[in-house]
Amino acid sequence: MTTHDHPSATLAGFAASLRTQDVPESVLRRAEDLYLDWLGSTLAGRSARAVQAIERYAQAMGPERIRDDGASEVLISRRTTSPHFAAMVNAAASHVVEQDDVHNGSVFHPGAVVFPAALATAQAIGASGREFLAAVVAGYEVGIRVGEFLGRSHYRVFHTTATAGTVAAAAATGRLLGLDSATMLNAFGSAGTQAAGLWEFLRDAADSKQLHCAHAASSGLASAYLARDGFTGARRILDGEQGMAAGMSSDADAARLVAGLGTRWALAETSFKFHASCRHTHPSADALLSLMRGHRVAADDIAEVKALVHQGAIDVLGRVVVPQTVHQAKFSMGTVLALVAEFGYAGLDEFDRHFLAPRVAAFRDRVAMQLDGEVDTAYPRQWIGKVQVRLRAGRVLEARVDEPKGDPGNTLSRPELEDKARRLAAYGEAATPEEMDCLIQSVWRLEREPRMGRVFSR
Amino acid sequence: MTTHDHPSATLAGFAASLRTQDVPESVLRRAEDLYLDWLGSTLAGRSARAVQAIERYAQAMGPERIRDDGASEVLISRRTTSPHFAAMVNAAASHVVEQDDVHNGSVFHPGAVVFPAALATAQAIGASGREFLAAVVAGYEVGIRVGEFLGRSHYRVFHTTATAGTVAAAAATGRLLGLDSATMLNAFGSAGTQAAGLWEFLRDAADSKQLHCAHAASSGLASAYLARDGFTGARRILDGEQGMAAGMSSDADAARLVAGLGTRWALAETSFKFHASCRHTHPSADALLSLMRGHRVAADDIAEVKALVHQGAIDVLGRVVVPQTVHQAKFSMGTVLALVAEFGYAGLDEFDRHFLAPRVAAFRDRVAMQLDGEVDTAYPRQWIGKVQVRLRAGRVLEARVDEPKGDPGNTLSRPELEDKARRLAAYGEAATPEEMDCLIQSVWRLEREPRMGRVFSR
Repeated sequence: MTTHDHPSATLAGFAASLRTQDVPESVLRRAEDLYLDWLGSTLAGRSARAVQAIERYAQAMGPERIRDDGASEVLISRRTTSPHFAAMVNAAASHVVEQDDVHNGSVFHPGAVVFPAALATAQAIGASGREFLAAVVAGYEVGIRVGEFLGRSHYRVFHTTATAGTVAAAAATGRLLGLDSATMLNAFGSAGTQAAGLWEFLRDAADSKQLHCAHAASSGLASAYLARDGFTGARRILDGEQGMAAGMSSDADAARLVAGLGTRWALAETSFKFHASCRHTHPSADALLSLMRGHRVAADDIAEVKALVHQGAIDVLGRVVVPQTVHQAKFSMGTVLALVAEFGYAGLDEFDRHFLAPRVAAFRDRVAMQLDGEVDTAYPRQWIGKVQVRLRAGRVLEARVDEPKGDPGNTLSRPELEDKARRLAAYGEAATPEEMDCLIQSVWRLEREPRMGRVFSR
Repeated sequence: MTTHDHPSATLAGFAASLRTQDVPESVLRRAEDLYLDWLGSTLAGRSARAVQAIERYAQAMGPERIRDDGASEVLISRRTTSPHFAAMVNAAASHVVEQDDVHNGSVFHPGAVVFPAALATAQAIGASGREFLAAVVAGYEVGIRVGEFLGRSHYRVFHTTATAGTVAAAAATGRLLGLDSATMLNAFGSAGTQAAGLWEFLRDAADSKQLHCAHAASSGLASAYLARDGFTGARRILDGEQGMAAGMSSDADAARLVAGLGTRWALAETSFKFHASCRHTHPSADALLSLMRGHRVAADDIAEVKALVHQGAIDVLGRVVVPQTVHQAKFSMGTVLALVAEFGYAGLDEFDRHFLAPRVAAFRDRVAMQLDGEVDTAYPRQWIGKVQVRLRAGRVLEARVDEPKGDPGNTLSRPELEDKARRLAAYGEAATPEEMDCLIQSVWRLEREPRMGRVFSR
């Protein structure tokens, strides 16, 4: 791993030579978990206007339908096309409901860019499930490290999922195409020099986030295909004098690119999103759920909830008193706790259908936030959830969780992941329950799959 | 022009509403000149390995061939495909021999990104020649201003042709698609957030320059098509708090975005490249040519040439004494002056075939550079060329040119442009002389073309 002459070459060499037998079993299983979670997120994005626009562009500019053998699948329309456009559209779909995975340290959503490129390539070349998994792990390990390398200063202006994501997609595709170390480095060079994505769109709530994922996945895939064909790129696109960090970061740390390669598995540090709300509400929601389950308390039993939070939660959530839109409701602590109390889950569907329901609104008004010293001190290293509940019967109960649901130390079980994926697919009206049964079973037997075929038979 | 609320909106409004009747005749004629020059450059790039790799990628990922009515043309292969891939491949081809146009102030090569997007779109929608010209002017005016806006600090790390070029391509395509001001601004938003391209590849002499043009043209085109379909983008992607300048420049000047819109025509400031050598050799080459023609001197008559130059020329060219490769020869003042003396022109073909010929090498060794106070003081505002020639017969002659051939004040005539285009096409073995006759005639009657068809009938 350390025989290469600079960090980029070391990282490319790692990605090029990674085999599933080098990866711990637990990491491979987690990669399958993340794959199912990504499939659900992508299906949930099916009807979004921005996603549909990108699919129409792909239809207009790409091959309409190619033979099934070696064709890549657009999951939201089930048509086949070339890998470039399948990666583009699936990536556009995968981030739109914001339920896809996230790596906290790099502030990077690996699934949204790695899986679209890996799946499109694997289907096109008929790779095995094991080859697909190796490529996914390579993509995650590379992308997360590039994100960490680019640092906080990068994230202030650039959308790391878009920029680091281009290199991550190249790594995953490159691994599937069997690039050697030098060729993988060329793929990184072409990917890094196409890396783009600015936060400016947030000010206008514009559609760019979907374009960022689409661009990262398709440009990264293109970079790997071009490299296989002899197209060369800068060898130090990451840390060179006129490379990504030179242009787009002021606190880059090249040591992060190679830290723990082969021993630290960054993929396993990736969090699943559980509730469909602002992350600042999750610790309290989990604590309330734990309390209600542990004490067999129903929503109607509760007279008052105090969410004991860090200052950041008050800053972000304090402004929303009576939410007017679904989006605002996701930033209303009262609404989130009300949905959790009523339905056991604050998912996309619960928000869409119930955020203004009378019982939900009434519960919402019985919730207050209060700054808590312990919670505030631990943040952001640790996201502790604490609630204090006064029952109508008079008793006061307390509960806490030390890590929000979905983080590595409190991860989702396979039944929970299956449930989430089913809900997401139903939300997008993108697959029947029976189809989801098949899909879920196929993910759990991925490693034994001799040849990655279509996700949906039609 | 100034009723919009910020510079990006003003620029987008200008691009959206530009009509040929608002553009001076001389600027339209120059746009035709630039079109012919771009066609030649693109044809010359036909056989380059990097270009062929991008064409193979386009063949693999795009539609193989679509119906001729409404199809976009890949000039180097003459196949038709979708606008996305035609723009991608033609852009990759257009910059590779480095004979395409350049705007000095913005250090931006507009033709390499604007024409690929404009031609592909115009062919796809069957636009008229006048609509095509309006789109080209819009692309040049926008791209040059974005390049000037991003400034010197941007150019130190980023390849402006790649970054500003994405917005320029969006402007040209957007104008052809008839986007209104607000929609054009969305196109700018999607283009700017995909703008990428780093100089790091220079260190490895990698193929990225071709990828940069391909990426800019195709991403910019995509941005305009998406905007037409309702896809939104950041309204202040250029000068917003998390926009292009915030992330990629430290000396951006928003006033440059709108300076002289509708009165100053930046397109007409664009230079043609005449000789195929380093720009620092051009003033001396032109002065020598002028001297030889004015005094009817032949190469054999010349005993010694003194090129009177600015310090920068000595810094860049001084290291090459006996060039070993064609590329080095382009940085050898002696070789360039020898080719000019022998053939009247230092073109691609002259370099490839003759840079080590005995007569050329002998003349090369009779050339010396000498720092000249007047030339050095005027630089870089003015690139004065001065030579002093001692004839074998003993007489000493002098000549000067105040602006190198190809710059706006010393531009190429149409016969010279035709000659250059023919040479470039022949160099690329991309068109017969008869085909070039037809092509040239069609460019000169562009404004009367009711519907942009194919450049080559087959």
